[in-house]
Amino acid sequence: MTTFGEACAAVVPVDAEAAATARARHDQLTKPPGSLGRLEDLGVQLAAISGEVPPPVPRQVTIGVFAGDHGVVAEGVTAWPQEVTAQMVANFVGGGAAINVIARQIGAEVVVVDVGVATDLPAHDGVLDRRVRRGTRNLAETAAMTTTELNDALEVGVTVATDAITGGAQLLVTGEMGIGNTTPATALVAALTGGDPRLLTGPGAGATPETVARKADVIARGIGRLPADAEPLTVLAELGGLEIAALVGFITAAAAARVPVVVDGVIAVSAALVAVRHNPNVLGYIIAGHRSTEPAATAALTALGCAPVIDLGLRLGEGSGAALAVPIVQAAAHILDEMATFDSAGVSSKEPAT
Amino acid sequence: MTTFGEACAAVVPVDAEAAATARARHDQLTKPPGSLGRLEDLGVQLAAISGEVPPPVPRQVTIGVFAGDHGVVAEGVTAWPQEVTAQMVANFVGGGAAINVIARQIGAEVVVVDVGVATDLPAHDGVLDRRVRRGTRNLAETAAMTTTELNDALEVGVTVATDAITGGAQLLVTGEMGIGNTTPATALVAALTGGDPRLLTGPGAGATPETVARKADVIARGIGRLPADAEPLTVLAELGGLEIAALVGFITAAAAARVPVVVDGVIAVSAALVAVRHNPNVLGYIIAGHRSTEPAATAALTALGCAPVIDLGLRLGEGSGAALAVPIVQAAAHILDEMATFDSAGVSSKEPAT
Repeated sequence: MTTFGEACAAVVPVDAEAAATARARHDQLTKPPGSLGRLEDLGVQLAAISGEVPPPVPRQVTIGVFAGDHGVVAEGVTAWPQEVTAQMVANFVGGGAAINVIARQIGAEVVVVDVGVATDLPAHDGVLDRRVRRGTRNLAETAAMTTTELNDALEVGVTVATDAITGGAQLLVTGEMGIGNTTPATALVAALTGGDPRLLTGPGAGATPETVARKADVIARGIGRLPADAEPLTVLAELGGLEIAALVGFITAAAAARVPVVVDGVIAVSAALVAVRHNPNVLGYIIAGHRSTEPAATAALTALGCAPVIDLGLRLGEGSGAALAVPIVQAAAHILDEMATFDSAGVSSKEPAT
Repeated sequence: MTTFGEACAAVVPVDAEAAATARARHDQLTKPPGSLGRLEDLGVQLAAISGEVPPPVPRQVTIGVFAGDHGVVAEGVTAWPQEVTAQMVANFVGGGAAINVIARQIGAEVVVVDVGVATDLPAHDGVLDRRVRRGTRNLAETAAMTTTELNDALEVGVTVATDAITGGAQLLVTGEMGIGNTTPATALVAALTGGDPRLLTGPGAGATPETVARKADVIARGIGRLPADAEPLTVLAELGGLEIAALVGFITAAAAARVPVVVDGVIAVSAALVAVRHNPNVLGYIIAGHRSTEPAATAALTALGCAPVIDLGLRLGEGSGAALAVPIVQAAAHILDEMATFDSAGVSSKEPAT
């Protein structure tokens, strides 16, 4: 069992020399230099992560789907009943959710983890029972988690990532489920970026404008409880969620193992932001899978300096947007591995500009 | 052998009833309504194209890569030597180009077609010899093609598409190669949209600012030869390319067979614009694979009303951006086919807004 602290300590900066070698190789491949745009950047990042040029194609993919509930639903921040979290966990196990469909298409494994569901789950062989508690406390009123609960949830994520990588996973994808969890995610982004909750709060899974205004107020109340200089992990315990904490551990453990991790929408990027603020070396291992429509997602991506791979107006979560991006990430590695060079293919280079 | 005229006449409007049924089905699937954003729109489009809900997953994919040269290179619109067109055809056959790499990844067939290469090609079993002539004439000075040459090139595209579909292809992807071909493509977009060539002309495969200015001037001279009310096919003959004309036939024949066609960058969208201006019913069968960095690509997408699937700053052509979008298009069909409904999964719906 690796602790979160051990995972953090194991994260090394990505390999700048391999990145430069990959960039130089791109300029020898049979295409105008730079003409594969951000696909080239992704290939360079994979080289920097692995330290190899060409980087290995990340064929074996594990999607960690962490489920948790949120005490803040007592504030009326969502129109969805809390039992939907447990029902969707059953749906994940049954293979009927969007993330299952996309995972089957891309050949990825889905690991479903109960880190903090509030309601009873029917016994499922397919769910890892790592429940830390039955949902968080109401972040508007008090700390969502104790320090012990936070550490337990972080370690759940570390363990799931480490087990997947030990089992051969070459790429991790973040997934989650938790009714109400755009509220803690937005609160984390607002607290860590200093953004205005009224500008960062979106409709999540379909809230009305009145509910969005209430969410923003709830988030402002939660942030108001914190000192201005709170550490990222303190902010996470105060405002976050058990599944979000697990994602922080999951992302950090991927980085510790030098495995790329594709992050999904607003919940995942809030976790990525916590992980990177806690340990900046983690950033180089993160690939932003997509841009969620939630305003806080874009704010977090901007704060991280990450450009998303796809931008299709998705706002589902579960890991769906990140999983859709996986074939493009894999293509970036295939390109560096398989394309001919100008020399090897006997193709003339561009004439010098006159 | 089907002529272009026969293909045009066979294009029926997409099925609006199937589209509505697919939209309604999306609202029953276990996700917040609309939360899969443009992935839902793609699924609806596939349903409208096939007339079936769920639409069949387009597993068998053919990429038609049409190669042609351009007399307008005499004007100095590109720094790449013309023989690169033939060299890249050899690279396609050898499997070393970007489009080969992505095609292998997605399990697609690549059909390489010489519709108008100017220089001799080594004998390759892998190239369909459908050469209409050795490159076009210089569009700055005269019509790029005669009417007969245009019709021959259109028919090449129709035949390649029809043969692929007869062989089982369920999705077509447009590809092309032709040194200098951003010049005719931009000319077509400028002529058909009324846009200013100085605003629509980009660097293509890496032209200097001086060359870009020369390209814009060349394009303006070509457009200046045409009457204001020229028919789309006349504009194509005057300003286009043999590979662009083949793509117009390829796209139209896909529509005639009710097969979706994913179009690539500026060359492909210029062909799509010609095809749709000639026969508006073709539009419903077109999926914009990506947004090229060339300004004329965005202008053509806007004129068509098509939102691209991916936007990664690509400007390579060959079909590379469209091919990268294929897994996302397939995901759209998988989602409609495989996701559970709220009823079937026993998941509660959102409570009515209060």
